[in-house]
Amino acid sequence: MIAVLCGGVGAARFLSGLSDATEPSGVTAIVNTGDDTVLHGLHICPDLDTIAYTLGQRVNPDTGWGVRGDTFRAMEALEALGGEAWFRLGDVDLGTHLYRTGRLAQGATLSRVTAEIAAALGVGVRILPMSDDAVRTNIVLRQGVDPRVDPSVDLGGGRAGDTPVAARGETVSFQDYFVRLHHSVEVSAVEFEGAAGASPAPGVLDVLGSVDRVVIAPSNPVVSIGPILAVPGIAELLSARRGTVVAISPIVAGRALKGPADRLLAELGEESSVVGVARHLREVCGTLVVDTADSNRADEIEAAGLRAVVTDTVMATPERAKALAEVVLAC
Amino acid sequence: MIAVLCGGVGAARFLSGLSDATEPSGVTAIVNTGDDTVLHGLHICPDLDTIAYTLGQRVNPDTGWGVRGDTFRAMEALEALGGEAWFRLGDVDLGTHLYRTGRLAQGATLSRVTAEIAAALGVGVRILPMSDDAVRTNIVLRQGVDPRVDPSVDLGGGRAGDTPVAARGETVSFQDYFVRLHHSVEVSAVEFEGAAGASPAPGVLDVLGSVDRVVIAPSNPVVSIGPILAVPGIAELLSARRGTVVAISPIVAGRALKGPADRLLAELGEESSVVGVARHLREVCGTLVVDTADSNRADEIEAAGLRAVVTDTVMATPERAKALAEVVLAC
Repeated sequence: MIAVLCGGVGAARFLSGLSDATEPSGVTAIVNTGDDTVLHGLHICPDLDTIAYTLGQRVNPDTGWGVRGDTFRAMEALEALGGEAWFRLGDVDLGTHLYRTGRLAQGATLSRVTAEIAAALGVGVRILPMSDDAVRTNIVLRQGVDPRVDPSVDLGGGRAGDTPVAARGETVSFQDYFVRLHHSVEVSAVEFEGAAGASPAPGVLDVLGSVDRVVIAPSNPVVSIGPILAVPGIAELLSARRGTVVAISPIVAGRALKGPADRLLAELGEESSVVGVARHLREVCGTLVVDTADSNRADEIEAAGLRAVVTDTVMATPERAKALAEVVLAC
Repeated sequence: MIAVLCGGVGAARFLSGLSDATEPSGVTAIVNTGDDTVLHGLHICPDLDTIAYTLGQRVNPDTGWGVRGDTFRAMEALEALGGEAWFRLGDVDLGTHLYRTGRLAQGATLSRVTAEIAAALGVGVRILPMSDDAVRTNIVLRQGVDPRVDPSVDLGGGRAGDTPVAARGETVSFQDYFVRLHHSVEVSAVEFEGAAGASPAPGVLDVLGSVDRVVIAPSNPVVSIGPILAVPGIAELLSARRGTVVAISPIVAGRALKGPADRLLAELGEESSVVGVARHLREVCGTLVVDTADSNRADEIEAAGLRAVVTDTVMATPERAKALAEVVLAC
């Protein structure tokens, strides 16, 4: 039995490999919901959906998220009306958001809705949101963003003409940072709004307390794993069993394979490297799996108090994802 | 200058004819919003959309509502997840609902959003919702509905297995009655929830007080025109100028051309005929335009206190809709 703390695309690929390497029913994914947002009235859970679509064999292989072969007729119509279409929701993908939003409005918990979606998509892995309570990752920008300079940026939620200028130190939502601003702005802090008052979703602590091994997927340690660890009880439980917690570094040779993990680490004062990842996660895990490209940093990882395991971590094919999972299972 | 009180499909066809017969910019449509509903978190305004799509040359000609050539990929995905897909929302149509819901969440009024959508669709007629406040048409059923007998009926909003049985005298929303139950159940009363506390949308009373003529479109007098008249101030204003208010009967030879207007009139104790329509609207209009099929009822209409105008009212083609509009303009 194994539990995996998950962000989005990297975690989904690792879970696919793990499903090939072991019995999926023995795997529980505990997924970041700090990226969740409400757009046009719809409740969007990007990481949960990326994982469900990937494990349900529906994911768009070109992007790693969204639905393969999806169309964007609703988005095109929204755009023609002058609506905000920077967050692209495919037509088939919209079915998921409509379902989730309707069920939540009926009073179902996010855990229950997630289980329903996973079952409908034929997913064998158990998928749990980190919490049924709203936790929102907010990003504090180091410098202002001026939409008069970059007219594609409208952080005011208003229409053209009444766009405020984000000031220095402005706090924006995760999706504003990640999608609308293409994570191309400098960050001074990351906050997890609502985390202090959130509870782990039903099953999360039971699973984390009882499985043989906990894996921290190769996801952004700051904005994907960070929110999960911010939910009270989870980091404490992992600390107490850190000898059986294995993380996979999402940083290879100083660079994030995807997304802004490298820049975020540096901007928050951590080294942008496997050593920075080790230092960031040292309290909750005892082993860090790093790529062969980083074998020369193993001593520094050990000096930070973690065991270093070196292997090929770049999941370019399903076979390599499976091979990585097998190494992790043998840790 | 002319104002038209409107429901959905029949009103939209009449407005098309009126746009051919006169300058569209002189026409204001005041539209029923009692049918509005929130589904899957999205704010749906069926009558406003039918009118905007029709006047914007986008309507599905086979149904009279929805968008021509629309696809239903989101609905198919929703259905595959086990969601409630009895209210069919096309993918392009969803763009409108996403836009409206997003704008309302930003604090825009329904009037403003309606104007934005109409402008984007190139509609020349001014479209006003009857109110920016929520008014909801509820239907009291004469008998219970038993989903164990008709498994397509689930009025509980829950999932299969926990479906309550609607009891005698159950009140359901308009869309539950109209779409989910296919208006095939007997009605004992119609209620307009929120109407007493609602205000006419900005411009409605000004328009109704200043135009040369007010037309009541050939829409269901009970559930399409009824909600508009239930908004405080509107019926009073029309009563004071009833000599210049002209209604077009949606009942021809005792039958509704579309929908349940005939049965509803009968169920609520009114005659299912042009005479019943005349009696139902006598307080607010002085002239009733009826079809040649009903020329033999003209005396009874006059006895009810309305002038009867007989013409061909069945708008089978754009030309006939235009001809009807010309008769109404000459009333």
